[in-house]
Amino acid sequence: MARMTDRMKELFEKIPTVVLATADSDGKPNAVPVGAKKILDDETILISDQFFNKTLKNMKANPNVAVTFWEGHEGYQLKGSVVLETSGSRYEETARWIEELGNAAGFPLKSKGIAILKIEEIYGVTPGAKAGKLLV
Amino acid sequence: MARMTDRMKELFEKIPTVVLATADSDGKPNAVPVGAKKILDDETILISDQFFNKTLKNMKANPNVAVTFWEGHEGYQLKGSVVLETSGSRYEETARWIEELGNAAGFPLKSKGIAILKIEEIYGVTPGAKAGKLLV
Repeated sequence: MARMTDRMKELFEKIPTVVLATADSDGKPNAVPVGAKKILDDETILISDQFFNKTLKNMKANPNVAVTFWEGHEGYQLKGSVVLETSGSRYEETARWIEELGNAAGFPLKSKGIAILKIEEIYGVTPGAKAGKLLV
Repeated sequence: MARMTDRMKELFEKIPTVVLATADSDGKPNAVPVGAKKILDDETILISDQFFNKTLKNMKANPNVAVTFWEGHEGYQLKGSVVLETSGSRYEETARWIEELGNAAGFPLKSKGIAILKIEEIYGVTPGAKAGKLLV
């Protein structure tokens, strides 16, 4: 397990859209923007699935994911594996949150399920000599 | 092969940073922001490598990549395979372009090589019923 620093958490929450990368069973990568994301604790991220297509299929076949976010020249990549949930208290709470988001935005939104990422490694994606290096 | 529409090309050029996703030989995805990118023609993208680390290692082992870019609720994902070049006219021209970018930015930048993506499929990443669907 790897723990996010306060600065990483601050940036993750500030940035409206992060990237969720997955890979299919043939090793073909897929990357999509994700807005419905939350920090559960220093080493755990929750992502809600409203519109996942290949991403969901990939996560079912291969739980390894990467979540990348950046602002200007500062950025991070969280790597680990996901557990998918479509019931239980974490899902129910997320479903209410997403429904409220939809109501606030004026169009219906429904959470089909959640992906819980346990962070195993954190890399920098900031340009320069440290690019791509393991941070945590 | 798949051809980008004029709108896709316009958005690709307008957005300063796109995402390049790769996967290692174990199927672990990797996604990094990329600023040094150019359209060569409707079905070909060039990306310059200044700071690639896992991305380069992954592309050498597995040429399948995804390039994702979006603005607001409009976005696209280009999928295909890359050829890597570290010499020849396309690399030399890119090396000059990157050196000029560095000079303009006030810090040295050097292209270590280029990845040429031949686009095979184009997907939407716009939220809604068409999310993740094959467009081209």
